[in-house]
Amino acid sequence: MKSYKGSGLVYLDNGKTTEVDPLVLAEMKKYFTRYYGAPSATEYGHSFGLKIREDVEKAKATIARKINADPAEIVFTSGETENDNLAIKGVCFAKPLAAGKKARIVTTKIERKPVLDVFKTLEEMGCYEAIYIGVDGEGFVKMDELEKAVSKDTALVAVQHANPEIGTVQDIAKIGELCRSRGAVFYVDATQSFTKEKIDVKQMQIDVLSISSDKIHGPKGMGALYVRSGLRLQRLFEGGESADDPRPAGIPNVPGIMGFAKAVEIADEKDNEAMQKLRDFLISELLKIPNTRLNGSREKRLCNNVNVSFRFIEGESLLMLLDEKKIVATTGSACYSSNLQPSHVILALGLAHEEAHGSLRLTLSKFNTKQEMKYAVKTARDVVEQLRKISPFSAENS
Amino acid sequence: MKSYKGSGLVYLDNGKTTEVDPLVLAEMKKYFTRYYGAPSATEYGHSFGLKIREDVEKAKATIARKINADPAEIVFTSGETENDNLAIKGVCFAKPLAAGKKARIVTTKIERKPVLDVFKTLEEMGCYEAIYIGVDGEGFVKMDELEKAVSKDTALVAVQHANPEIGTVQDIAKIGELCRSRGAVFYVDATQSFTKEKIDVKQMQIDVLSISSDKIHGPKGMGALYVRSGLRLQRLFEGGESADDPRPAGIPNVPGIMGFAKAVEIADEKDNEAMQKLRDFLISELLKIPNTRLNGSREKRLCNNVNVSFRFIEGESLLMLLDEKKIVATTGSACYSSNLQPSHVILALGLAHEEAHGSLRLTLSKFNTKQEMKYAVKTARDVVEQLRKISPFSAENS
Repeated sequence: MKSYKGSGLVYLDNGKTTEVDPLVLAEMKKYFTRYYGAPSATEYGHSFGLKIREDVEKAKATIARKINADPAEIVFTSGETENDNLAIKGVCFAKPLAAGKKARIVTTKIERKPVLDVFKTLEEMGCYEAIYIGVDGEGFVKMDELEKAVSKDTALVAVQHANPEIGTVQDIAKIGELCRSRGAVFYVDATQSFTKEKIDVKQMQIDVLSISSDKIHGPKGMGALYVRSGLRLQRLFEGGESADDPRPAGIPNVPGIMGFAKAVEIADEKDNEAMQKLRDFLISELLKIPNTRLNGSREKRLCNNVNVSFRFIEGESLLMLLDEKKIVATTGSACYSSNLQPSHVILALGLAHEEAHGSLRLTLSKFNTKQEMKYAVKTARDVVEQLRKISPFSAENS
Repeated sequence: MKSYKGSGLVYLDNGKTTEVDPLVLAEMKKYFTRYYGAPSATEYGHSFGLKIREDVEKAKATIARKINADPAEIVFTSGETENDNLAIKGVCFAKPLAAGKKARIVTTKIERKPVLDVFKTLEEMGCYEAIYIGVDGEGFVKMDELEKAVSKDTALVAVQHANPEIGTVQDIAKIGELCRSRGAVFYVDATQSFTKEKIDVKQMQIDVLSISSDKIHGPKGMGALYVRSGLRLQRLFEGGESADDPRPAGIPNVPGIMGFAKAVEIADEKDNEAMQKLRDFLISELLKIPNTRLNGSREKRLCNNVNVSFRFIEGESLLMLLDEKKIVATTGSACYSSNLQPSHVILALGLAHEEAHGSLRLTLSKFNTKQEMKYAVKTARDVVEQLRKISPFSAENS
């Protein structure tokens, strides 16, 4: 199997993290070995630091432009987990609580683990009431539940733009409208959708948005929050020149910032269209395997996400055999996560535990090829057939 | 002036941040473009993720070895500001407070700003009593003050190993002994000293230690805490596979981790000796300029730190003229920081505001050359002379 760069690996786990683009690496290199200094904290300073300060400002502008924000609304962080914590705690802790009354915070049952964990921590503090909105069989947030849950006392609503496992894309503008009309701060986790789906923070009425560099061929350990101008976040770190800085960095990660901005700059709608074609090929071919279902929506789906369940099969065995064939993928199955829980997302769709166990997620990048897709389909077909032959649950064997 | 790599720049601000070493960059490159996946969360997983997991474990071991710690005691973070916050808040918030009694926390007047800022925040919470220990004229912590301050009720003592501005190296083992004997958790900020001074966390009786990659030619946005086995930190971020993980990262910054470890691996005592020779040359030559004093200790001083005060001179003008001559340095003077305060470190030494204003810090790296030192001395001499000619405070002009 000849794959990208001849490593022999067919990497279909781009929803988790991606390879750094050579153009991004070239950009970062400049800041590793030439403009390696710290940016000036002010408009005064030595010319070396000022040049770097200017470049960082340009990077902010590049990222802001992509989501129709102002550069001053971009806050750099260390990535998605920090984003969730800073966004949710930052919004909640910045607002004094009304005496003797719990503040309501609302999210969905299919958010990423850090979001759900922060919600749990806030609940345990005793002064927040958390509500978890259900989803329908394709993973769409139940709007009637949400309508009921978001009240004038709601401090925060957190809804992801696209689900990392099943790729379902929510109607963020509609939810944004609801939140704004009831005065609730709206936090959107866009780690999966950024550069793949159109995001306009003004039109969608988003207050805080989370994006992560490592999902778009930028460096790891680098993320950003959009924080609507005028909204104050309680910071999680002390330090920095100004107490108003929601995320003091000490020495900013300039190569990371510049690499992130370069990844945004080169993100191309044509790559999304190409990924979507490969995705559709994968889906239609995989569904030809008997007793296979697509998880998530067929229509409103991330351009790079495929998630199918093969009945009568354990995800572990599936991945093990795919691994032998040099295919990197993920499963919603239990034993692949260290907490031994099957995917909370697949379960929230109303699927049986058995179906959650046989789920396979393939997530694409612009570096994947049609040839790789054909290889993945053929391999999956062989492996599923092989496993079903020995499965005690299989129709053939019962 | 021919300098390293012919950029023409004489970079003497390595105490702030350093250039990435080519060997570090080569190591990181492997993880940007070849092993770009996420490490497996468990010992099970696809072979791609397992290989990366193993490499991350090796990196932890490399860093642990350098300070005589166990690999499991190393926690990766986004750098020094996060380190200070996670260490100090993590220790304080993990311990329930005794009812009706403030917990005492102790630090020095010359710590880095994030440490002092975290202390201030804890004080403002109302349940902590912060004590700030003074230093002598060379920047050494007043041990008698410290002896009196550290009681059985002391939750935490935070003392830096070496001061970033004046390079004074504290007797950490002695302070560690005091803290351990009174049951106080001992946090050491070793961002400046790591790989430059010998650190043995066991022998020095350190409980938490902060180190940062960007000070030792590693990548920015990457740091680590040593957390003594058995000591629990309250984490600042929720998320991650295990609730015991003091710093869940989501997608770990593997290139950052590997680059950091490589920087530690190649750190060489010979480089320290070479820097020390250049430092001593700089100090003795600069002190030949009339009305110049050395700030900090002559003997117990970081091998790469020079800090002198030129009387009758403003640091701003000094830096501006050095900048014109392509020398990058820093001053403890007010207008170069965005909060317009003169250096709290220089003031803590008992120096007059006037002397704080004329301070110049030159911090070296292994990439600096003797030729650069000669150029820096000559340039400083010329610039000081030029400025004193027009200074209203100068002896010549009064």
